[in-house]
Amino acid sequence: MSIRFAILGAGRIGQVHARAVDGNEKAVLAAVFDPVEAAAAAVAERYGAEICDLDAIATADDIDAVVLCTPTDLHAQQIELFARAGKAVFCEKPIDLDSARVRDCIDVVNETGTTLMVGFNRRFDPHFMGVKAAIENGSIGAPEMGIITSRDPGAPPADYITRSGGIFKDMMIHDFDMAVFLMGGMPESVMATGSVLTDKAIEPLGDYDSASAILRWADGRQLSISNSRRASYGYDQRVEVHGSLGMAAAENEHPVRIEVATASGYARPPLHDFFMTRYIAAYANEINAFISALDGAAVSGAAGGIPTGIDGLNALLIAEAALESATTGRLVSIAG
Amino acid sequence: MSIRFAILGAGRIGQVHARAVDGNEKAVLAAVFDPVEAAAAAVAERYGAEICDLDAIATADDIDAVVLCTPTDLHAQQIELFARAGKAVFCEKPIDLDSARVRDCIDVVNETGTTLMVGFNRRFDPHFMGVKAAIENGSIGAPEMGIITSRDPGAPPADYITRSGGIFKDMMIHDFDMAVFLMGGMPESVMATGSVLTDKAIEPLGDYDSASAILRWADGRQLSISNSRRASYGYDQRVEVHGSLGMAAAENEHPVRIEVATASGYARPPLHDFFMTRYIAAYANEINAFISALDGAAVSGAAGGIPTGIDGLNALLIAEAALESATTGRLVSIAG
Amino acid sequence: MSIRFAILGAGRIGQVHARAVDGNEKAVLAAVFDPVEAAAAAVAERYGAEICDLDAIATADDIDAVVLCTPTDLHAQQIELFARAGKAVFCEKPIDLDSARVRDCIDVVNETGTTLMVGFNRRFDPHFMGVKAAIENGSIGAPEMGIITSRDPGAPPADYITRSGGIFKDMMIHDFDMAVFLMGGMPESVMATGSVLTDKAIEPLGDYDSASAILRWADGRQLSISNSRRASYGYDQRVEVHGSLGMAAAENEHPVRIEVATASGYARPPLHDFFMTRYIAAYANEINAFISALDGAAVSGAAGGIPTGIDGLNALLIAEAALESATTGRLVSIAG
Amino acid sequence: MSIRFAILGAGRIGQVHARAVDGNEKAVLAAVFDPVEAAAAAVAERYGAEICDLDAIATADDIDAVVLCTPTDLHAQQIELFARAGKAVFCEKPIDLDSARVRDCIDVVNETGTTLMVGFNRRFDPHFMGVKAAIENGSIGAPEMGIITSRDPGAPPADYITRSGGIFKDMMIHDFDMAVFLMGGMPESVMATGSVLTDKAIEPLGDYDSASAILRWADGRQLSISNSRRASYGYDQRVEVHGSLGMAAAENEHPVRIEVATASGYARPPLHDFFMTRYIAAYANEINAFISALDGAAVSGAAGGIPTGIDGLNALLIAEAALESATTGRLVSIAG
Repeated sequence: MSIRFAILGAGRIGQVHARAVDGNEKAVLAAVFDPVEAAAAAVAERYGAEICDLDAIATADDIDAVVLCTPTDLHAQQIELFARAGKAVFCEKPIDLDSARVRDCIDVVNETGTTLMVGFNRRFDPHFMGVKAAIENGSIGAPEMGIITSRDPGAPPADYITRSGGIFKDMMIHDFDMAVFLMGGMPESVMATGSVLTDKAIEPLGDYDSASAILRWADGRQLSISNSRRASYGYDQRVEVHGSLGMAAAENEHPVRIEVATASGYARPPLHDFFMTRYIAAYANEINAFISALDGAAVSGAAGGIPTGIDGLNALLIAEAALESATTGRLVSIAG
Repeated sequence: MSIRFAILGAGRIGQVHARAVDGNEKAVLAAVFDPVEAAAAAVAERYGAEICDLDAIATADDIDAVVLCTPTDLHAQQIELFARAGKAVFCEKPIDLDSARVRDCIDVVNETGTTLMVGFNRRFDPHFMGVKAAIENGSIGAPEMGIITSRDPGAPPADYITRSGGIFKDMMIHDFDMAVFLMGGMPESVMATGSVLTDKAIEPLGDYDSASAILRWADGRQLSISNSRRASYGYDQRVEVHGSLGMAAAENEHPVRIEVATASGYARPPLHDFFMTRYIAAYANEINAFISALDGAAVSGAAGGIPTGIDGLNALLIAEAALESATTGRLVSIAG
Repeated sequence: MSIRFAILGAGRIGQVHARAVDGNEKAVLAAVFDPVEAAAAAVAERYGAEICDLDAIATADDIDAVVLCTPTDLHAQQIELFARAGKAVFCEKPIDLDSARVRDCIDVVNETGTTLMVGFNRRFDPHFMGVKAAIENGSIGAPEMGIITSRDPGAPPADYITRSGGIFKDMMIHDFDMAVFLMGGMPESVMATGSVLTDKAIEPLGDYDSASAILRWADGRQLSISNSRRASYGYDQRVEVHGSLGMAAAENEHPVRIEVATASGYARPPLHDFFMTRYIAAYANEINAFISALDGAAVSGAAGGIPTGIDGLNALLIAEAALESATTGRLVSIAG
Repeated sequence: MSIRFAILGAGRIGQVHARAVDGNEKAVLAAVFDPVEAAAAAVAERYGAEICDLDAIATADDIDAVVLCTPTDLHAQQIELFARAGKAVFCEKPIDLDSARVRDCIDVVNETGTTLMVGFNRRFDPHFMGVKAAIENGSIGAPEMGIITSRDPGAPPADYITRSGGIFKDMMIHDFDMAVFLMGGMPESVMATGSVLTDKAIEPLGDYDSASAILRWADGRQLSISNSRRASYGYDQRVEVHGSLGMAAAENEHPVRIEVATASGYARPPLHDFFMTRYIAAYANEINAFISALDGAAVSGAAGGIPTGIDGLNALLIAEAALESATTGRLVSIAG
């Protein structure tokens, strides 16, 4: 029997998820909601889904799961609404920019006993999954140190930055989640710094476009993160974990694997220029993992199962501590 | 207005093409035929297509194009049938194992004035397209020499080999087409050799599992090809063209880009183990190119447009000459 | 006319430098000193040098330059001795473990007007020089952020660690110098952390075997460093600088560039297992640069000339601040 | 006790060998001969050797071994002279351009019982040795097929080409030796073709600048070779052997391992531009192997020991057959 889905938010990422739901044999895209009628209509027609409003989806007997691609400030209340309505919920990160609000939301979800998955898509990237697998299968021994590098092709518009929570909660949060995912367990403290190097327009917004952090676990393990909102050569996403027996590293994904050698040397095309093409496989994999989790199947690939509300909270707690460290110049303990 | 498609043959490759047609906004998968009813039904249900028989498709007013994924020995007559019925035809390679039959078929197609595309999918692989683009944009100057390496994970079953036309017409034919595509113009002669190195069961079938060839153009340009039906490490597909100003090379596609370094050195996962995952992008691209061609749009990517009947014939002529060279130990001129 | 050299300390690194002096057409290895007579004799015989004691070298009219490969605690006084004697001095790093002592020593050198070069050999590594050149020629624009990774195959003996000054002054000091060399200008502050992860015997010595740091310049530029005394796969030495127009990165040097592909994937041999083979070219290059500097020639390769006493002092000042940060958990300003 | 050497021919390659002899602790460079007095004097002075004429070297009691870097047309008679004089002989390839003359020379050597090593330096390249080792240790199973690519930065002067014996005997001969070295055993037949693509001045000399060949062993094994006298991006030297269990490949050696990523993609510096820097390690290794062989030690690295007269003859026999094939367009059997 098929799992029947509704998608809320039919924009860019909503369309990606709609396609993934439609492509999974165990799922059906039954309903779509978007305040922009044309957006909802486009998805509805393409996948044979019905256009519904929020309440209709919440009360529909034949909707099993919802995918929330709505604005961040609606996430927490919508999670609660649908959890109480007995729907499984997939929510784009973050649940909320405030950890206290996230805690409350998780409490509600726990009371209802429903499944909440948070969209940390990078856990489902084939390359990062390969690193995770190398750790899980013992190839590199116990993880000791890590290095994560994330550089975006360019900074988002000021408007987005204002609502984003800042570089630590918006961009480095992916790396914090990856750090926990790969190293295992929550870090105890963080040192961080941030500055504006690429786009002076960001300065008056009180945010940074360049940031570095060192996470430290109670047992002395360490992981360095370097973020920049600028990368002329494309979407630069690298992860490496160094353990007692060796190192596992995920390299950048080059969409075209050619080499052109001339008198000036060897040349290769740049990386992906957009996160949605870079993570196209990850997006499909995460929806499939969500469906498998609902279907009771063991979730293959992302060892440790799907990321849930706790994972969303953990990454946010690290981000809050990193922001405090960048502001105060002190090592900051991470709330438990 | 949409281009309405019928797919004939709902097996493995038929399903791949069905998905590509369905995913293209300018096309609709309207009909499907397969003698195996369950196969036809699966595609019909998944994409909302109708199950039809051959004649119904040929005579249907609302079918514009057909995709032939039927057995090779039916290709030529089906191309002629549908060409005469005024349908555009996409046909999996080869048109036929006999070049005389192919010439007749092309004559019929030319009389009808319809579009015939032959499924040389590798022309639409992003990496090989990158090499083609490097040649077209002058980066490496005039092509002088080339090296193509194709190794399959394992030999196909004896049953398949018997009907395949042998390694030159079945496997190296892709490389012959790639050679013409990249170097430009038909080679004048070929030297080739073949042997059985990986699977002794192939010997009594009169075929080879390992073959090498050197193509030579009238102006002295040369290209070497090396084929093996065995590659423990996956689907090994490399192409390089060396020109007056430099070299352009397409590397293998690694599905997982990680590196695990331990005391025994650096390790990477193997290549794709199946041609359908290796060429997943190429299969989608070629159907999109076919649709664009029918739509009157310039075909982006594969410079020089879509491969047609002449390309199918050319590759086959080279294969026939290579087989003769392998048998006689002489350089063999390629029929014009 | 040849520049006549004396080498003090005929151990491992002394022999490397002796060979480099001998191999340079503008230099002659005239004298050697080592308290271990056999060591001095071996070098003397191999290169036709005379065995001399310290004073004889200092007072010899026909010695132009000395290379100090003596124990660290003798460096400062020997630099002063030979500077006053009018000899040019090449000294292995560090000048001293205490920055106040280094400042005094530099004052003496400056008074005498002699040339002092400090052995930051990595500035002369072909790969790191390549990164420096990419910065100098404008390829990557203004440097914004950096990442340096240094991992040694294994920890040195406890005896060495006790006298080394600890991981920041002994190991990460190379990375601090590289940071200044590549990013340009002294950083303003540092955050650092250290722990014992690989060898519990290091704990009672009050040192770390694993350390991370973030350098920050006054204009907001940032550079992350990650150090480990363990790397099963060899001597791991990577540097990358990210600028406004792009990134320049030096990869590890693999002594054997082969790939072996089997059913378990692709394998490569490990890295160099010893710093003297890893940096064999750098060691020869730095002595050649010293000789060129003495010869009045522009020093090619290492833009900005040879590293002098100030460079030795600067790296030490960063190391002292990093140690304080690791101890206090605070961002520490670096003394000017 | 030291092995005492004389070097005949103090040009470019003679100097390389002189340095290698001098650097080996078991050898002494005692004598040097060159008709150009200044050349002889330079080597003599640098390494403390005596300038001698041919006869003096042949009759000297205290010369154990000679290194012949003289013109090719003198090789055979000089080998015979020194073999009869009881000297071990290292001779640059080829022994002679005519296989009959080579056979005679080998007969003389065999009668005298001396050691003759032929300078197939590539057998001592660290990367090609790595491929050989992978074959020897069973990693890739029994070798089945091979691909060798050799491209030179540019064609030699017409004067050199005239005396060289042509591309098959001068350039591809290295690949023929490598093929025998790696695949094991002599091939049975060869198909080859050649043309002039890069330098029209070569045409009237009756030689080619571009050539391809397929070697075939009696058991059906195959190896493809592609040669060009032009490579804008440097000295391109690759080797790969494909076996029943996998593939071993030697990649090009990049002197500077950096990557510069900008908006136009990733860039790397070109390859070595000169064979003497590309093969610097191989040249030292081969002289060391010769000395070890004379010293009675097992020759490490190049499994199967040093290349001798037979190896020189074998490669030449393949080259003669390849030339015949290129001329006649027929598969040509290789003389036993």
